[in-house]
Amino acid sequence: MAKITIAEFHELSAQRLPFSDLLGLELQSIDETGIWMRARYNDNFLRPGGTVAGPVMMGLADAAVYALVLSRIGPVELAVTTSLNINFLRKPRAGDVLARATPLKFGKRLVVADVVLYSAGDNDNVDTDNPVAHATATYSIPPA
Amino acid sequence: MAKITIAEFHELSAQRLPFSDLLGLELQSIDETGIWMRARYNDNFLRPGGTVAGPVMMGLADAAVYALVLSRIGPVELAVTTSLNINFLRKPRAGDVLARATPLKFGKRLVVADVVLYSAGDNDNVDTDNPVAHATATYSIPPA
Amino acid sequence: MAKITIAEFHELSAQRLPFSDLLGLELQSIDETGIWMRARYNDNFLRPGGTVAGPVMMGLADAAVYALVLSRIGPVELAVTTSLNINFLRKPRAGDVLARATPLKFGKRLVVADVVLYSAGDNDNVDTDNPVAHATATYSIPPA
Amino acid sequence: MAKITIAEFHELSAQRLPFSDLLGLELQSIDETGIWMRARYNDNFLRPGGTVAGPVMMGLADAAVYALVLSRIGPVELAVTTSLNINFLRKPRAGDVLARATPLKFGKRLVVADVVLYSAGDNDNVDTDNPVAHATATYSIPPA
Repeated sequence: MAKITIAEFHELSAQRLPFSDLLGLELQSIDETGIWMRARYNDNFLRPGGTVAGPVMMGLADAAVYALVLSRIGPVELAVTTSLNINFLRKPRAGDVLARATPLKFGKRLVVADVVLYSAGDNDNVDTDNPVAHATATYSIPPA
Repeated sequence: MAKITIAEFHELSAQRLPFSDLLGLELQSIDETGIWMRARYNDNFLRPGGTVAGPVMMGLADAAVYALVLSRIGPVELAVTTSLNINFLRKPRAGDVLARATPLKFGKRLVVADVVLYSAGDNDNVDTDNPVAHATATYSIPPA
Repeated sequence: MAKITIAEFHELSAQRLPFSDLLGLELQSIDETGIWMRARYNDNFLRPGGTVAGPVMMGLADAAVYALVLSRIGPVELAVTTSLNINFLRKPRAGDVLARATPLKFGKRLVVADVVLYSAGDNDNVDTDNPVAHATATYSIPPA
Repeated sequence: MAKITIAEFHELSAQRLPFSDLLGLELQSIDETGIWMRARYNDNFLRPGGTVAGPVMMGLADAAVYALVLSRIGPVELAVTTSLNINFLRKPRAGDVLARATPLKFGKRLVVADVVLYSAGDNDNVDTDNPVAHATATYSIPPA
């Protein structure tokens, strides 16, 4: 069972991570293999080319891993990103972006996670063959 | 001589990159070896631990390379990030963050740049021995 | 259908990539979604801790993407790696290492691929829940 | 003062890291800000295009950081790479490759280092404006 609920994550974000609001972040679901998170589109996302700015996708990827970590260890606010690598693959459309985060390794001190980002299609369909970006991120977990 | 002025970059950002405003981005200087950019602190930067959220630093690093690229090729809006790798090194203080971007390779189609991020100290002093993050980013330049 | 056979890849490697021999590289299979490659263990792989040296895994990951690329475009020798990011996740055992490479994006000029590395277990079983490393690599394809 | 001498590093490599011999690795110098390491050319380095294979450069970058770490903490064999990111910038010539490794952060548990790779020119001149590759690597140091 998840160590944090979606509501609890949103409350923590609202109180302690103001930036997540600018990114329109919404934790969508927590399951046994990972989490889904959405960046709900607003006009601040736009960049030339009619597409979504890179920092929005980087912020979404980072937050998705934070939610993944907290879903397994509870509300340990001081878990921090130590590194992030992202490849931008395709031009996202000017709309919501969805992220799927899954762990590659979940150690006591370090978590390495894989994140795939998709443009949300009609009815929130996701074209899994055509992700818009792919990231890996490492989080450091403070000693209990 | 730079192919874009600081004022022109700010005008382009204001009109076309709304996200840069949320990050408080200010291009500080353009010189022969690179550029300096600042993320001027606002309360949206905060994350637990009394420090600056990772997405702020990623957005600053990405924008610093964008400014570096445009300073050398002019206002080519459609230059896009293809990849970014960042290591978070030290906890930045809750304040302005400064970025120094320099090219590792400036090709016709691909630019690879090095970015070092610092907490702005008193009087904007920068402790060059203790960067808060280091990034490398690749930009793709569209055919002329 | 693959644009290069396993035998052709091995012939190209033997003649043109002497380093692949030091790594004991063997292309195992090519299918519609990717390729499998093996680094067959020899005593040069060892590092302190009774495990496999990092450069062996990096070389395997890189070669796996090269084989993936050639399986789809044919024997274009001058396809070159432009970047590679690797996370070492678990200590591999002193034995063969297997790599699964799949494309994240297969463009005309750039290919981005995902590579997962596993220790080969008894009977070549692979513990898919416990990869030893994960890499992403970008290849540049020369104009035809 | 360095916690390991060049001779001690070579002895450790010869006995415990057979792969370093295939790469022709030679620790050149240790100073207060970093180390220089060479990969002495042999015909196994070649790849199509008359240049040096990527795995040679990745192995050199990794070993350079290992030497940097040991120069500051002594012969702690079990220090291990946790991640490495490399950008290939220019085609190296078929000859020796030199690496300069310097720390970005030297913590008790984690070291993040910057590595710049150059083709060795005539008389070992290094064209510092035109590196052939750039890497960042993270090492994990076991508790004492």
